[in-house]
Amino acid sequence: MKIFGGRATQALTQDICSYLDIPPGQADIFKFPNDNTFVQIKENVRNVDVFVVQTSVPPVDEALMELLIMIDALRRASAKSITAVLPYYPYVRSDKKDQPRVPITARLVADLLVTAGVNRIVTVDLTADQIQGFFTIPADHLTAQPVFARYFKEKGLENPVVVAPDPGAVKRAQRFSERIGAPIAFIDKRRMGTEVRATTVIGDVGGKQAILFDEEVDQGSSLVKAAEMLLDKGASEVYGACTHAVLSGAAPERLSKAPIKELVVTDTVPVPPAKRWDNLVVLSIAPLLAECIRCIQGGQSVSALFM
Amino acid sequence: MKIFGGRATQALTQDICSYLDIPPGQADIFKFPNDNTFVQIKENVRNVDVFVVQTSVPPVDEALMELLIMIDALRRASAKSITAVLPYYPYVRSDKKDQPRVPITARLVADLLVTAGVNRIVTVDLTADQIQGFFTIPADHLTAQPVFARYFKEKGLENPVVVAPDPGAVKRAQRFSERIGAPIAFIDKRRMGTEVRATTVIGDVGGKQAILFDEEVDQGSSLVKAAEMLLDKGASEVYGACTHAVLSGAAPERLSKAPIKELVVTDTVPVPPAKRWDNLVVLSIAPLLAECIRCIQGGQSVSALFM
Amino acid sequence: MKIFGGRATQALTQDICSYLDIPPGQADIFKFPNDNTFVQIKENVRNVDVFVVQTSVPPVDEALMELLIMIDALRRASAKSITAVLPYYPYVRSDKKDQPRVPITARLVADLLVTAGVNRIVTVDLTADQIQGFFTIPADHLTAQPVFARYFKEKGLENPVVVAPDPGAVKRAQRFSERIGAPIAFIDKRRMGTEVRATTVIGDVGGKQAILFDEEVDQGSSLVKAAEMLLDKGASEVYGACTHAVLSGAAPERLSKAPIKELVVTDTVPVPPAKRWDNLVVLSIAPLLAECIRCIQGGQSVSALFM
Amino acid sequence: MKIFGGRATQALTQDICSYLDIPPGQADIFKFPNDNTFVQIKENVRNVDVFVVQTSVPPVDEALMELLIMIDALRRASAKSITAVLPYYPYVRSDKKDQPRVPITARLVADLLVTAGVNRIVTVDLTADQIQGFFTIPADHLTAQPVFARYFKEKGLENPVVVAPDPGAVKRAQRFSERIGAPIAFIDKRRMGTEVRATTVIGDVGGKQAILFDEEVDQGSSLVKAAEMLLDKGASEVYGACTHAVLSGAAPERLSKAPIKELVVTDTVPVPPAKRWDNLVVLSIAPLLAECIRCIQGGQSVSALFM
Amino acid sequence: MKIFGGRATQALTQDICSYLDIPPGQADIFKFPNDNTFVQIKENVRNVDVFVVQTSVPPVDEALMELLIMIDALRRASAKSITAVLPYYPYVRSDKKDQPRVPITARLVADLLVTAGVNRIVTVDLTADQIQGFFTIPADHLTAQPVFARYFKEKGLENPVVVAPDPGAVKRAQRFSERIGAPIAFIDKRRMGTEVRATTVIGDVGGKQAILFDEEVDQGSSLVKAAEMLLDKGASEVYGACTHAVLSGAAPERLSKAPIKELVVTDTVPVPPAKRWDNLVVLSIAPLLAECIRCIQGGQSVSALFM
Amino acid sequence: MKIFGGRATQALTQDICSYLDIPPGQADIFKFPNDNTFVQIKENVRNVDVFVVQTSVPPVDEALMELLIMIDALRRASAKSITAVLPYYPYVRSDKKDQPRVPITARLVADLLVTAGVNRIVTVDLTADQIQGFFTIPADHLTAQPVFARYFKEKGLENPVVVAPDPGAVKRAQRFSERIGAPIAFIDKRRMGTEVRATTVIGDVGGKQAILFDEEVDQGSSLVKAAEMLLDKGASEVYGACTHAVLSGAAPERLSKAPIKELVVTDTVPVPPAKRWDNLVVLSIAPLLAECIRCIQGGQSVSALFM
Repeated sequence: MKIFGGRATQALTQDICSYLDIPPGQADIFKFPNDNTFVQIKENVRNVDVFVVQTSVPPVDEALMELLIMIDALRRASAKSITAVLPYYPYVRSDKKDQPRVPITARLVADLLVTAGVNRIVTVDLTADQIQGFFTIPADHLTAQPVFARYFKEKGLENPVVVAPDPGAVKRAQRFSERIGAPIAFIDKRRMGTEVRATTVIGDVGGKQAILFDEEVDQGSSLVKAAEMLLDKGASEVYGACTHAVLSGAAPERLSKAPIKELVVTDTVPVPPAKRWDNLVVLSIAPLLAECIRCIQGGQSVSALFM
Repeated sequence: MKIFGGRATQALTQDICSYLDIPPGQADIFKFPNDNTFVQIKENVRNVDVFVVQTSVPPVDEALMELLIMIDALRRASAKSITAVLPYYPYVRSDKKDQPRVPITARLVADLLVTAGVNRIVTVDLTADQIQGFFTIPADHLTAQPVFARYFKEKGLENPVVVAPDPGAVKRAQRFSERIGAPIAFIDKRRMGTEVRATTVIGDVGGKQAILFDEEVDQGSSLVKAAEMLLDKGASEVYGACTHAVLSGAAPERLSKAPIKELVVTDTVPVPPAKRWDNLVVLSIAPLLAECIRCIQGGQSVSALFM
Repeated sequence: MKIFGGRATQALTQDICSYLDIPPGQADIFKFPNDNTFVQIKENVRNVDVFVVQTSVPPVDEALMELLIMIDALRRASAKSITAVLPYYPYVRSDKKDQPRVPITARLVADLLVTAGVNRIVTVDLTADQIQGFFTIPADHLTAQPVFARYFKEKGLENPVVVAPDPGAVKRAQRFSERIGAPIAFIDKRRMGTEVRATTVIGDVGGKQAILFDEEVDQGSSLVKAAEMLLDKGASEVYGACTHAVLSGAAPERLSKAPIKELVVTDTVPVPPAKRWDNLVVLSIAPLLAECIRCIQGGQSVSALFM
Repeated sequence: MKIFGGRATQALTQDICSYLDIPPGQADIFKFPNDNTFVQIKENVRNVDVFVVQTSVPPVDEALMELLIMIDALRRASAKSITAVLPYYPYVRSDKKDQPRVPITARLVADLLVTAGVNRIVTVDLTADQIQGFFTIPADHLTAQPVFARYFKEKGLENPVVVAPDPGAVKRAQRFSERIGAPIAFIDKRRMGTEVRATTVIGDVGGKQAILFDEEVDQGSSLVKAAEMLLDKGASEVYGACTHAVLSGAAPERLSKAPIKELVVTDTVPVPPAKRWDNLVVLSIAPLLAECIRCIQGGQSVSALFM
Repeated sequence: MKIFGGRATQALTQDICSYLDIPPGQADIFKFPNDNTFVQIKENVRNVDVFVVQTSVPPVDEALMELLIMIDALRRASAKSITAVLPYYPYVRSDKKDQPRVPITARLVADLLVTAGVNRIVTVDLTADQIQGFFTIPADHLTAQPVFARYFKEKGLENPVVVAPDPGAVKRAQRFSERIGAPIAFIDKRRMGTEVRATTVIGDVGGKQAILFDEEVDQGSSLVKAAEMLLDKGASEVYGACTHAVLSGAAPERLSKAPIKELVVTDTVPVPPAKRWDNLVVLSIAPLLAECIRCIQGGQSVSALFM
Repeated sequence: MKIFGGRATQALTQDICSYLDIPPGQADIFKFPNDNTFVQIKENVRNVDVFVVQTSVPPVDEALMELLIMIDALRRASAKSITAVLPYYPYVRSDKKDQPRVPITARLVADLLVTAGVNRIVTVDLTADQIQGFFTIPADHLTAQPVFARYFKEKGLENPVVVAPDPGAVKRAQRFSERIGAPIAFIDKRRMGTEVRATTVIGDVGGKQAILFDEEVDQGSSLVKAAEMLLDKGASEVYGACTHAVLSGAAPERLSKAPIKELVVTDTVPVPPAKRWDNLVVLSIAPLLAECIRCIQGGQSVSALFM
């Protein structure tokens, strides 16, 4: 077994390898002046089970193409099997055709990976469980919910409520609320007539510690608005818990100033120092991925990791 | 263009054909004593665009295999293109791997259809929009929401609220609530400790006409319980609106006795007289499907039908 | 190696496992009230060579879909290889296009199996050897002829003749006649003008013990008529030998009353007590299948089993 | 529509084109000194439905590769569709795995054709109907039986009997015997102990005009022996009727000297003057193929041609 | 027919459309803050033959993914056919495995395009003709050689010599030299021992107007060195002719200062004003591509365009 | 591991097996009188890694089909993996579409091999490196350049020059010239006006030992003309070095009489005694292929073999 990391995911790859006590696989990856990515695998991989770790982080298309190119090189170098480990799945939100003549890019990505030569994927907290069905190769879909649950249980909140920041997030938030034994509420956003969006809290949050729970935090604006509304509705304090710390644009500034006591994320997307602030807590996803790789390689069931 | 109907979907096929003013395609479909399905297409289909209408209704595996066999016969008979029209998509709820070592049968069905020779599918109100991504062939995903919205608007309820019967249904219920300009609520069901399930209403329903909105009604028990709880929480009356009238087992009896003023469904799944009762309203899905077929054949955009 | 049995083939799976002295694989397989089949494999199968035994028995489409769903679950659970063991191949008689616009369902079944994830098949006594060519994955086609030959040799018939019950069965019957060193005859059935079917015996059966030999016995009527005609032509007694005991509809009653001294079949199709009668002899196919599985798993040649 | 002929099938292609009153498509086809086949299509075929006629005739691998290369050239030249017309299907007798570790070359050929870019095939009198199932693209399987039936009916034989030259040919011979209203018999050949082959006539031929009926005549020896045996058993005279005149090696000499009144064949395999003799009758298959092409192109049913 | 342009190729798409006198297809293409590309086709494309023009220009991976996403959207929107027009093919130089464990990205790109749904490609001046063989779908490979030949013939050079700037470019340069009736020479570069590279001119250039001819000009350094060496060897003046003006990094500055009388390129890669200088001549490739599209759509042969 | 040889490549297969000290695999391969090739593998290959060695030699289509048929037999016999070893790749020169409506047969061959069931290929000195990209399965492309370099270095030529016999061969010849530390020249052939071909030597050969270097020698005429021209231009003597000794037609006679001091080839194509002459030197390719097979089987890097 060898584990290679794409350039977008070096630190996480190193953490996974340290956990498993093996050195990361060596590869030359760079760009020619004409912006073409070049890859050369520097170790023999004939008959080796190979894992390639690459997350989706800007520039996302480069990260994806780099992954596909690595896979092509590994396949041509006679790797025995190739598992793509995608901590944050590329184009995960483009998973349905909700307007005329739009793509389903998340499915396209699945097909591109298989075309390049992937035999299995491992990923974390997809926006919708159904995305697993975009693959027919084995796909291990892990969740960071146990990681978050452990964190919040240790915190010992007295009267927590889990809040989904929009109607589409209710299902997963509810699962988390079960896990930590808290009630559930959600933020309803809607068009009234044209363009005007009304927002309300559905469910009871008064005097409670609200945990806004979602798969990812991108620009942060709706999280900020949700926090304000929850406090307005009487929540005693507001936390955020989001697996994927996308944190686009002004998100760090916006969120650091918001009335959110703590925003808890994982490092499925790398969070560089410049994007961190005092109330941001970054939990490590490496143990979960490392254990999953160990199970796959050892022929053990991965399901214990979901619990 | 010719339209053939599977044996499970004869009435609906006839309605679609009447709407389009063409005769249904002729085919011999029957079972040999050994329970093997036989199909013979009785009309020349060389170079013809063919639509095959077959819904998922018990015995569901027979309906599906019959469809696959019809497609094989049409493909070998040199049809120009084959569109499978699936008013109620087979195994739609088996769309994710939420336990260890289970199948994703809805994806399997997609692959079986493509393997048999389908070039395009048309379907109605999937449990999750993501299921479109199980296909790479064009898939037109229609919704009966406009049909329901028209019905309930004409009814002129004074103070309606749309209620999702479980957390997973919130997103679609919310879209419907926007469509008819009503607020939203949902029923939270959860495990507390082991096995015990607590149920609560999240959101405000007091003094309102609650419309329980879901893709399908199967055994009906949770709908009945939801209706009782809503009345308990002060709802003035309760309606149900569910696209697919699966109505398994004792569902008709159970639902007819429940405190549900009206259960409104469509005929994506045929509702035989024996399964009907006074307060069941069956709206026809045929015009929607017929218009969709007309657009596909005429090269027009189907998107207007979603509005 | 693990062996799982579909619900239609529990007894035979148990017999194979007993022969090989391993326990059958555990799986939850049941139907939801909406008639959808659910499967959950209850044992870890990562990196395991898996065999799934499922025969074609009414309701045949359910048995087939159950098999496909099991395969999908096993594939997604990372089985190393999946062999479908099909004692009686589904839709085996729909193997050619002998009328306009009919399917070749036996080929469709082959493609469905491969689409679901099967890597190899094992089957017994196909109607035509050519059906092996419906697959490009390895296909082990076993025959019960040695089982029947052993049985009839032990019986010590003095002057046997093998009789094919129709022109299409001559080739295989002839191979069996060689095997037991007996001459051959056949029943000719034909249209004369329109609809009228004349039937004759071609070949000499006078004073002989006729063994009607065919792949399967379905409704039994033609076997009964053949027996009567053979006795009419002077055969001293009539036996039947058919691998697959389909025995549809009134077949048991019809055959038990017929002038057939013994009808010998195997249990490729399960024969429940209600379908058995005094002169029905059921030979076990389990040892043949078990030996074949042993060879496959041990990397030994299966060909010795054909002799 | 354009029709191209391989080098092995020039005369037949010309006959088909004359029948349809169109000129054959122009192509340069030749071999380089290194024995590599070169093809250049000399006419624009963009958006054209193309038929390529190539039969299997020695050197058979060259004829097949030439066909595959023509198809590749046509596909890359943007033909709208490509139909391979295979009057005598290559490797048709290698259609099953009847010994350990042998190929099923007829299936391999099917896959090679599809890989090269064929969209449909047309062929004549396969050894087994099941070979159609080697394809999932549309396959029109024609038969020369009506051509032979017309010929023998015009001959006005008083008391004909159709004889299958071996057990595997009984089914097709029986169909022909129905067609001309004659009884059926067959030649049984078998191993007795080791190596010794006994041969008998099964059925009654005394005083009758025997028509030996088979798909093909290859080396001719078994046909000659069958003829002698039939005369021995009292047949008044013997005819042969075989679609494919393979006539390998010394077949013409052997057959011309045999007590066969007339051997009737078609030109699915070209019969050069050197292989002809007085009692050989060659019927033209061109009208059948031409009508089939006309139906395909006109979107009409081909089934009338089977009758 | 409709023609859509990717964002990297707007001007060229506009030129092609102007030449054909049709408006470019409308599409919304933009990036979300999280760097994910979004595409929505704004016109109905059901049953329409669609061409998508997108060249490879930095950021090359974004341009490629944008193209793949557009294709997915068009396929799902039921376009009749999709032709990718790739003026400069992505990763064209990664076309072989000349070191251990490297990818063949140009082949990977071919497979990604086909996976996304492309039915045909059009491209210009590939580094190697063999890259056409990376596709089995029709691929029209155009060359700008006639454009360059026309330009240089009009210039009326008295005594020109075509020079290949490295051994790998000799073949194509020689073809161009034939086209304009000039002799040929080339620059030999080689390792002597380790790392040291010796460079020589092979062939006679004294007193001649040297035209350095290559598919592309990237960083420009070797072109500059070649020009200097040619002058050194007595060439009277030096021109450059390169189809693809990649012009990476400091190339414009470097080349504008070099002793190259004129560098002639096309706009297969857009050349923004900032990258232009006095002696850079940009010839339009739009007429060639437009004529090719016209031929494809009209079912005419494209070969005349190669001459 | 087992190694089987096609009939066209028996001696080389034997040499490879001797080198590896294993017996060649046993197979019956012959032609029926109807020119159909039959194959039966005579050893159990279940779960065995199999190598099949077959070169392209006239009759080339037979050699290719025989290979495909062997692969089909091995796949159906459950070989674990199948590597096709193609010392001289079939149709290697048909690798591009350089005229309208021609095939790319080398790509077609790649697809035929994969369709038949090949998992990997090994080949030697392709005409263009890009042909590796015709495959997505692993392809080990070996070169005989080290074999030739060793031979010529031992010869100790004082002042050698490597000469490419045409512009397309310059790149590979240059690589060889680097390898032996010699300068490079090439023969320019061109059309002037119509049909007339002028030929010149580009580069300096006066007083040098010219080594004409090319992948293959086919008819030999251009090699002979090149040799004469080189001597004419002052070369002191002329050698030839060509990996593949195709030697079609009168090549041996023509070359043996030519002013070529020595023609050095390998046995990738068998050179029978009748085709040998005094100045022909045949180097063995068996050690290179055997080492490659050993590396593949041992999971070692093949790259050392390229150096």
